[in-house]
Amino acid sequence: MRCMTSSDKPGTAAEAPAPAPRTGVAALDWASASADPQYRAAVVDLLGALAYGELAAFERLAEDAKLAPTLADKAELAKMASAEFHHFERLRGRLAEIGEEPTGAMEPFVAAYDGFHKQTAPSDWLEGLVKAYVGDSIASDFYREVAARLDTDTRELVLAVLDDTGHAGFAVEKVRAAIDADPRVGGRLALWARRLMGEALSQSQRVVADRDALSTMLVGGVADGFDLAEVGRMFSRITEAHTKRMAALGLAA
Amino acid sequence: MRCMTSSDKPGTAAEAPAPAPRTGVAALDWASASADPQYRAAVVDLLGALAYGELAAFERLAEDAKLAPTLADKAELAKMASAEFHHFERLRGRLAEIGEEPTGAMEPFVAAYDGFHKQTAPSDWLEGLVKAYVGDSIASDFYREVAARLDTDTRELVLAVLDDTGHAGFAVEKVRAAIDADPRVGGRLALWARRLMGEALSQSQRVVADRDALSTMLVGGVADGFDLAEVGRMFSRITEAHTKRMAALGLAA
Repeated sequence: MRCMTSSDKPGTAAEAPAPAPRTGVAALDWASASADPQYRAAVVDLLGALAYGELAAFERLAEDAKLAPTLADKAELAKMASAEFHHFERLRGRLAEIGEEPTGAMEPFVAAYDGFHKQTAPSDWLEGLVKAYVGDSIASDFYREVAARLDTDTRELVLAVLDDTGHAGFAVEKVRAAIDADPRVGGRLALWARRLMGEALSQSQRVVADRDALSTMLVGGVADGFDLAEVGRMFSRITEAHTKRMAALGLAA
Repeated sequence: MRCMTSSDKPGTAAEAPAPAPRTGVAALDWASASADPQYRAAVVDLLGALAYGELAAFERLAEDAKLAPTLADKAELAKMASAEFHHFERLRGRLAEIGEEPTGAMEPFVAAYDGFHKQTAPSDWLEGLVKAYVGDSIASDFYREVAARLDTDTRELVLAVLDDTGHAGFAVEKVRAAIDADPRVGGRLALWARRLMGEALSQSQRVVADRDALSTMLVGGVADGFDLAEVGRMFSRITEAHTKRMAALGLAA
């Protein structure tokens, strides 16, 4: 996932929660933490979801590259796609390393990601850029929140694949320039961003409803998982960060 | 370009010509060879054509990945696409290194590659695999023939980006299995391969007709370029290698 860090994007949910001292699972390494079979199942779900997300993002960006107005833009999107593929490889490698069949771990998340991408196929180059930016930012915020609760080894991997590959700036620059050139573009893209957020939330709910281990980790019950109120606050932080990013982009969220 | 070496595919045109001792340009490095402005222009054309070819191949493979029947197949195609992108990056880097604007060098070849891909959009997974295999083999044979006539630095780069990334075996295995399972598939794919070869030749002619420096290098007149009879023999070798590959694949060419 090509993602943004707080240093290069306006408004990041990950800024909000004060870093708590690592306790419980977050203080353990994988070998110790994975002794709990429910924690292990949750991490396999998480890695599977992330891995398929990267592969789907690869496809989406490669597809969007076809809409690029110039060869240089096309090359830039191909570069992002290739970076997503390498993240996919790392996640697949980790799944294999812990003795899980990567395909089996990814399968449960195919429908949600494919559904999201099918419902939000960009109709032009700018919609594709906004989608890449919005989608990756939300996903990055979400996974960073979760990462803080993971064992040290898994956390390190998750943060590494969320690492900014430097392309948020690319999308922001192009979208801002397009809105400057024709302010009406802003209205259309604001509606588009709203649709993306809605679809992302609806697909996430689907996943949470389907995957027991993952949702148990999120709503508490496993080690340092969230409680339900905390999950609500997390979604508020993510939505708020999204609103700020859209405003900075010149779009009303 | 994901390409095959003679060690892993049946029938390679590059086997045919006995390696002659390097003379003329082929014995020089880039610094010396590029003093000839016509040679320099031909190499810029060649690198531009190769670079855009890699970028187009990236797009084509990423597109074909959507047709993959399994997640593992999808990941395999995404890997090939990513490898093509890295070859593209090397070629673009070299163009910049020798002071050429990469986009400008690629532009003249966009229409031919895009025309080829537009005329030969695979309608299913197997057609996509045959296209990747046939297209890359022909391109690889062609560029290897040309490489033998290049200065040492350019030759090294061209051979490196033609280096087999190990995927010819993947296509061959899948296509063979499909023909074993249903021999009628072979007839359809044989027609398809014939169409690919025809379209590749027609687009190559278009490029040769348009690009003076490149064709002068090919038909002689610049240093160790080919003479016209030699070009004819080269096309015979490439066609022959194609026929052998198709036969080995169980397809009548």
